[in-house]
Amino acid sequence: MSNSVINLKNRPFVQSFASAVGKKESEGPLKEYFDVICKDTSMGQDSWEMAESFYQKKAFTTALQKADLKESDLDIVFAGDLQSQCTAAGFALRDYSVPFSGTYGACSTMALTLVLSSLMVNAGYAQNAAALTSSHFCAAERQFRKPVQYGGQRPPTAQWTVTGSGCVILGNGKKEHMPRAEKVIFGKIRDLGIEDENNMGAAMAPAACETIGRFLDGTGTSPEDYDLILTGDLGAVGTKLLYDIFEREYGGNLAPHHKDCGLMIYSLDSQDVNAGGSGCGCSASVLCSKIMKELCEGKLNKVLFVATGALLSQTSAMQGETVPGIAHGILFSNQ
Amino acid sequence: MSNSVINLKNRPFVQSFASAVGKKESEGPLKEYFDVICKDTSMGQDSWEMAESFYQKKAFTTALQKADLKESDLDIVFAGDLQSQCTAAGFALRDYSVPFSGTYGACSTMALTLVLSSLMVNAGYAQNAAALTSSHFCAAERQFRKPVQYGGQRPPTAQWTVTGSGCVILGNGKKEHMPRAEKVIFGKIRDLGIEDENNMGAAMAPAACETIGRFLDGTGTSPEDYDLILTGDLGAVGTKLLYDIFEREYGGNLAPHHKDCGLMIYSLDSQDVNAGGSGCGCSASVLCSKIMKELCEGKLNKVLFVATGALLSQTSAMQGETVPGIAHGILFSNQ
Repeated sequence: MSNSVINLKNRPFVQSFASAVGKKESEGPLKEYFDVICKDTSMGQDSWEMAESFYQKKAFTTALQKADLKESDLDIVFAGDLQSQCTAAGFALRDYSVPFSGTYGACSTMALTLVLSSLMVNAGYAQNAAALTSSHFCAAERQFRKPVQYGGQRPPTAQWTVTGSGCVILGNGKKEHMPRAEKVIFGKIRDLGIEDENNMGAAMAPAACETIGRFLDGTGTSPEDYDLILTGDLGAVGTKLLYDIFEREYGGNLAPHHKDCGLMIYSLDSQDVNAGGSGCGCSASVLCSKIMKELCEGKLNKVLFVATGALLSQTSAMQGETVPGIAHGILFSNQ
Repeated sequence: MSNSVINLKNRPFVQSFASAVGKKESEGPLKEYFDVICKDTSMGQDSWEMAESFYQKKAFTTALQKADLKESDLDIVFAGDLQSQCTAAGFALRDYSVPFSGTYGACSTMALTLVLSSLMVNAGYAQNAAALTSSHFCAAERQFRKPVQYGGQRPPTAQWTVTGSGCVILGNGKKEHMPRAEKVIFGKIRDLGIEDENNMGAAMAPAACETIGRFLDGTGTSPEDYDLILTGDLGAVGTKLLYDIFEREYGGNLAPHHKDCGLMIYSLDSQDVNAGGSGCGCSASVLCSKIMKELCEGKLNKVLFVATGALLSQTSAMQGETVPGIAHGILFSNQ
């Protein structure tokens, strides 16, 4: 059973979704899709870390409003982020009286929180469950790399951490025209020895391939059966690697059926983001804007969302460790 | 429902449990109960962080052996630790081909991984699920406070991070004489404004009280109905506070029915640990040694395990933020 896709018999409904992003994201190709745009990325807070919590709060409270739910209607919130000890989530949720399960999957966290939320709702453990993640460029840069003021050079393989947050509320309540969660899969760690903390795409591509391949095997489907296989933030480098590995291991061409959130949120030509976007907030804000809207409208019918994470820390990078990758997946349908 | 205790109708069985601890822990009152004692706390590794991963591996593989299971028999592993980005768990599990869900609840993580594992097994999503956490004194000291070599003075309220790991495998397979998981409860964040990173007990006591009180209310029970209400690592300061808050809010005396893992693992008189033990590995190794053994033997019949966590980071502490607390709970019975 450990290779298996878990089937959600009750097909939980997306009750609502919301995204809150910063200035740079509001200037990219998806600008018209976001619920909340906060151009002051400090959010009026004293630190970038606390600002990130406020992006989470914006996405969380907007999702509650859109679903016409109160915080007391939530039985559980799965939330996480890239900050050490998941403090963006902890400090965001301390002001709400909701059961909270801290979740860590690096940039795969949006998929992991969705997997766990949908399992809770499907089993009847929760009437409503929220999946919530965020990232913040300045908080991530100084934690994983250098303080922004240092002005370090970014190699071509580097990705730009998205400032933003996304929230999906899943529930058993019937919601017309809203997407439903169909199946989920937990990721396994894959570590092929990448040591370059500026090349997360390469570190995560093998995990993305393994999860997508295992999902297709487990469901007896092929890429053509999906309107979209959406990875989290492989960026330009990781996406190309994913296609190569998938072709070698599964013999198919993933490209016509695949997009990557890291290549969707910014204009790579004009926004100076090198290999694309990244961060928990990248896949979260792309899923919770354009993708969910197109699922609602029937422009997309079957979307396999596979967010990818690089399980490194500043300490492990400084100690010369390799970068293990992981990818979790969830299949959404439009009813 | 958001205040509710979740009832595990199928009452998953503990398939096995295992603990692996370091030198100081092997000299404490519980020394005879641990499965694996590794007196070289570097575990032959180049870093304390990687050594912690090896304690996790020891607990994990020992639990698999004791349950007579292979890694492929595990459908999911919920694991976490105190290291930034949960790297102790990530690097421990990269060598195994198991689905992995990163879990963060600071020192409450052992309870959170048990809650999630038991929910997965109870719903039939998993035949077997593992709950795994660790901490390491040297890795935690240099991350949260000062490098050990600095020799910083420790105030009386400080606790000593346990070097060790614990693993519980839960499953649907019937296991005679093994404990069963009966009910679970997710914690809510409580922040009463404690700012002292050397007084985690005070930061966590309100959350422990809230979870215990909500569990008792939700089940219509009182402390006398339990052989033991076992908190994670409140230590001497937090335990006294818990009794005070509980008496004020619920009007009962918790003391005769309560123990704290942080007060059990070391001899406070002779081992120079100030207010007691702490860390994800504290509640994990105490639960996975003496407590589980006494549940198996029928010396204990009903144990409500409520591990407590302080949701701070080094960054949030340096920024002068308060320390939010959380506590998750699971009820074990001896059949």
